[in-house]
Amino acid sequence: MAETKRVFLVIDAGGTSTRAVLVDASGRCLGYGRAGGGNPTSAGITSAVAAVAHASEQALAGGDITGKPPFLTVIALAGENTAAFREQVSARLAALGFGPVIVEPDLLGMFHSGTHQRDGYVLVAGTGAVAARVVGGELDQVVGGKGWLLGDAGSGYWIGHQVARAVVAALDGQGPATALTELVLKTVAITAQSDSPAGRAQALKQLVSILYSWRPVQLSEFAPLAFRVHEDPVAREILVAASAALAQLLAAVRAPNLAGPVIAGGGVLVGGFLAAPPGLRERLALPTNNARVIPVADGVVGAAVLALRSVEIDVDEALWHTIQMEVARVAGVRATAPSRRR
Amino acid sequence: MAETKRVFLVIDAGGTSTRAVLVDASGRCLGYGRAGGGNPTSAGITSAVAAVAHASEQALAGGDITGKPPFLTVIALAGENTAAFREQVSARLAALGFGPVIVEPDLLGMFHSGTHQRDGYVLVAGTGAVAARVVGGELDQVVGGKGWLLGDAGSGYWIGHQVARAVVAALDGQGPATALTELVLKTVAITAQSDSPAGRAQALKQLVSILYSWRPVQLSEFAPLAFRVHEDPVAREILVAASAALAQLLAAVRAPNLAGPVIAGGGVLVGGFLAAPPGLRERLALPTNNARVIPVADGVVGAAVLALRSVEIDVDEALWHTIQMEVARVAGVRATAPSRRR
Repeated sequence: MAETKRVFLVIDAGGTSTRAVLVDASGRCLGYGRAGGGNPTSAGITSAVAAVAHASEQALAGGDITGKPPFLTVIALAGENTAAFREQVSARLAALGFGPVIVEPDLLGMFHSGTHQRDGYVLVAGTGAVAARVVGGELDQVVGGKGWLLGDAGSGYWIGHQVARAVVAALDGQGPATALTELVLKTVAITAQSDSPAGRAQALKQLVSILYSWRPVQLSEFAPLAFRVHEDPVAREILVAASAALAQLLAAVRAPNLAGPVIAGGGVLVGGFLAAPPGLRERLALPTNNARVIPVADGVVGAAVLALRSVEIDVDEALWHTIQMEVARVAGVRATAPSRRR
Repeated sequence: MAETKRVFLVIDAGGTSTRAVLVDASGRCLGYGRAGGGNPTSAGITSAVAAVAHASEQALAGGDITGKPPFLTVIALAGENTAAFREQVSARLAALGFGPVIVEPDLLGMFHSGTHQRDGYVLVAGTGAVAARVVGGELDQVVGGKGWLLGDAGSGYWIGHQVARAVVAALDGQGPATALTELVLKTVAITAQSDSPAGRAQALKQLVSILYSWRPVQLSEFAPLAFRVHEDPVAREILVAASAALAQLLAAVRAPNLAGPVIAGGGVLVGGFLAAPPGLRERLALPTNNARVIPVADGVVGAAVLALRSVEIDVDEALWHTIQMEVARVAGVRATAPSRRR
């Protein structure tokens, strides 16, 4: 089959990192690259395009694709897909010798990273929170993702914000004492002792001043602290409420007649709730130990699925597994290469 | 008594308006003035000083104080009392012929506007929310007032923020439909019809875009909408939760052995919760119909009490009532003067 000689550039352009893979029609991966945030909404178009190009160049440099120039690029994109971004990234990649660019929603990249099936659900909770129903390989309904001020209940921002509010309330005498206080003060390098009224007042004043100088979304940095002291009643209440909000988000896209797996993405969901210890897990509203909840690290496997399917290649379960293993191999080889060479 | 000839300038410098009164030691009010926001934290020091000076000049112009130049100024101040503000406002008022300036917390002005007693509590819910315990006429403990991001549960901002989130969730299909949606869309002049999926999607996109362009505290503009449709289940849940947060704030400053009235200030508390219709009132966590909860409009009466007490004048119940009636008289005469003259 000549088809297997066709090489695709597939990219998962996330808010904090961008991954690029060269993949052929048989699922074999020929190169891998990684760069910083490729989300034009958060990084700006110029930085996002630069990150995409940087990761793509790495993937090209590492690959052996003589006679098989990549003829199509699929970018799974977090953030708004604007015409300006599409034009600039297309021009940049064309200059590097890559083929035309198709931009797909990152939610589809995530979903197809977890399953070869075409129907199901995807729930992502990182800094933000969003859920979607996927029907026939397309987004049928998307709910959430309205940002720190107006939505994102249960997200990393939401948890971090609740942590900050709980610590302020504790120091202020308005809320119960919590193990989060020491962790938060340490995180922001406040050394005032919180074991005396005067020390608490000083710590509170410093904390309020520091946190108002942050961009609000930075409060998501506190989310891991809640998981770290999940036996603390205040932290636990925040996590249980967050899990309920995420369950509600997922419920909003559930359709009674649509089965299919739930693909789970994002650091708070995958690294936090799905990895919760039993004492916490049993209190969560999320079905964390359900076999139909499949965690994924990112959307790059799904971007490859979308690329192959865009030229009518049938990505069945076997091919999907090949892609998944191949992506893991090139990403893993690259990540661990220096130590292996020792 | 020569003492009754002494004239004091007393000022309540709030976030949205500033009131100045000339009062003598017998409680008689000799002049009244009003200007814009005099809070140096929100308006900036220059604007705040200008507002204080403008209100003071009006009070002086309207008063007949020949031979009795005001020898002391008390400013009840919302916001941070910085040395820079004190220096600039003192210099400006000195240039206008006023005596030395004492700056007092607005919470003490509020408290003494509601009672001649020296012990009790004050709870203020306007854009923000704060509570204090007053012992011997001084602030003994202050809780809350940590701003929109880190505190202020139950405040106008908090209610408005919950209203905005509820409307976004309703339009997004994530939360229940609510009568708040139409009111919020009308408030921000969005004309997209929310009775079809396409119309809702368009309205949602516009609303999210508009609200992220606001300063977050502007969301407090939505707080009155919740009171307006308080029979809507979503609005009611927000108001009940807000009242519980304010009750918790008040509980945080309660001391078991300290009786005394609760002085209530701020638009959300006085104009909202304390004026709630019976259907809403009976669900609130706040003791709104308790005779010991005394609403006040501002802190100017209390600023006068603080001024007289600062020179050891005994402000007993009779004198307090005189001040209260006198302030109402000069403020009212001025406010209604144009219509009376017709």
